[in-house]
Amino acid sequence: MTDKTAITPNTHTIPPAKFSHGVRKGNILQVAGQVGFLPAEGGRPLTPAGPTLREQTLQTLANVKAVLEEGGASWDDAMMIRVYLTDVDHFAEMNDVYDAYFEEQGLTRPPAARTTVYVGLPAGLLIEIDALAVLG
Amino acid sequence: MTDKTAITPNTHTIPPAKFSHGVRKGNILQVAGQVGFLPAEGGRPLTPAGPTLREQTLQTLANVKAVLEEGGASWDDAMMIRVYLTDVDHFAEMNDVYDAYFEEQGLTRPPAARTTVYVGLPAGLLIEIDALAVLG
Amino acid sequence: MTDKTAITPNTHTIPPAKFSHGVRKGNILQVAGQVGFLPAEGGRPLTPAGPTLREQTLQTLANVKAVLEEGGASWDDAMMIRVYLTDVDHFAEMNDVYDAYFEEQGLTRPPAARTTVYVGLPAGLLIEIDALAVLG
Repeated sequence: MTDKTAITPNTHTIPPAKFSHGVRKGNILQVAGQVGFLPAEGGRPLTPAGPTLREQTLQTLANVKAVLEEGGASWDDAMMIRVYLTDVDHFAEMNDVYDAYFEEQGLTRPPAARTTVYVGLPAGLLIEIDALAVLG
Repeated sequence: MTDKTAITPNTHTIPPAKFSHGVRKGNILQVAGQVGFLPAEGGRPLTPAGPTLREQTLQTLANVKAVLEEGGASWDDAMMIRVYLTDVDHFAEMNDVYDAYFEEQGLTRPPAARTTVYVGLPAGLLIEIDALAVLG
Repeated sequence: MTDKTAITPNTHTIPPAKFSHGVRKGNILQVAGQVGFLPAEGGRPLTPAGPTLREQTLQTLANVKAVLEEGGASWDDAMMIRVYLTDVDHFAEMNDVYDAYFEEQGLTRPPAARTTVYVGLPAGLLIEIDALAVLG
């Protein structure tokens, strides 16, 4: 039986419900939907980076990356990135931030596929991102 | 060539369009979006459990589980659970039901990753859930 | 290390941001969210098929298929198809088009699982579809 491992970066709180921030089994790693919460600090309620879309997007990407890395992967292993925005008018700005971010990450392999759709999110959250990675 | 198998639990109708309730190929099992329809009975139109979010959520989880099990998997194999709600105000209640449900399932491995977003669904449906599992 | 390959059909523009239209790694192929843009022609802005849902749906499916085939896969390898519509009232018509399309494709293996949800999309777009395939 292949091991199934929960991934909880030390920047993240224990998940608030019975789900994992990420799980890895064999060479498959799934990152749960991440939002732009700042790194967890004892006693502070979960607080999103902000208030701009840029800040939330960068923090959200950092949170996805933390799960990937804690699970032994990197952005180079990401196959699919799902981006959930709340406002169609945010697409261009998200893309700018996204492109600049991945430019800086120095990918050595092709970037992941991506789907972006516009949904509702809890108050104060402008973006949510999850990712599927295949390692090796 | 690895076999690709359609999964149709006997609680489910034949899919109403050219999709499968679940498919398995090798160790990958994908569960299609399930909603809170009660088990199919000849002659009765598809009827959601209800009317509460709690009832629909539990029926939806039961429907996902039926596909997992018909495909030879269990919740322990689930890597990703995608929850689609129609109303941000339903998040806390869904989480309560979700947590209690998985507590009762007696998972022996870490719970799946999860993404929850808020979308439109057909009239009368409050929740939809799909899942990706990796067996073995 | 298994090769990770970006898939860019010649009907598609170079992706407008740092994502791939599709990526393949080993036997996993992920198709990015496709919309109903007509095949790219030099100098012409991206133009959706239309104006009907039927035309956009068929073009979107053709665009997904182009990525699958460029990556060495076919609809028979598709495990999951995610359909994003903008209007619940489009479900029946999309299903009709979807079913007729797959009837014509002559699948030799069970159809993919599917989730359909209703989200916001950029102006002019009525449908977006992505797909996960497992080859072999």
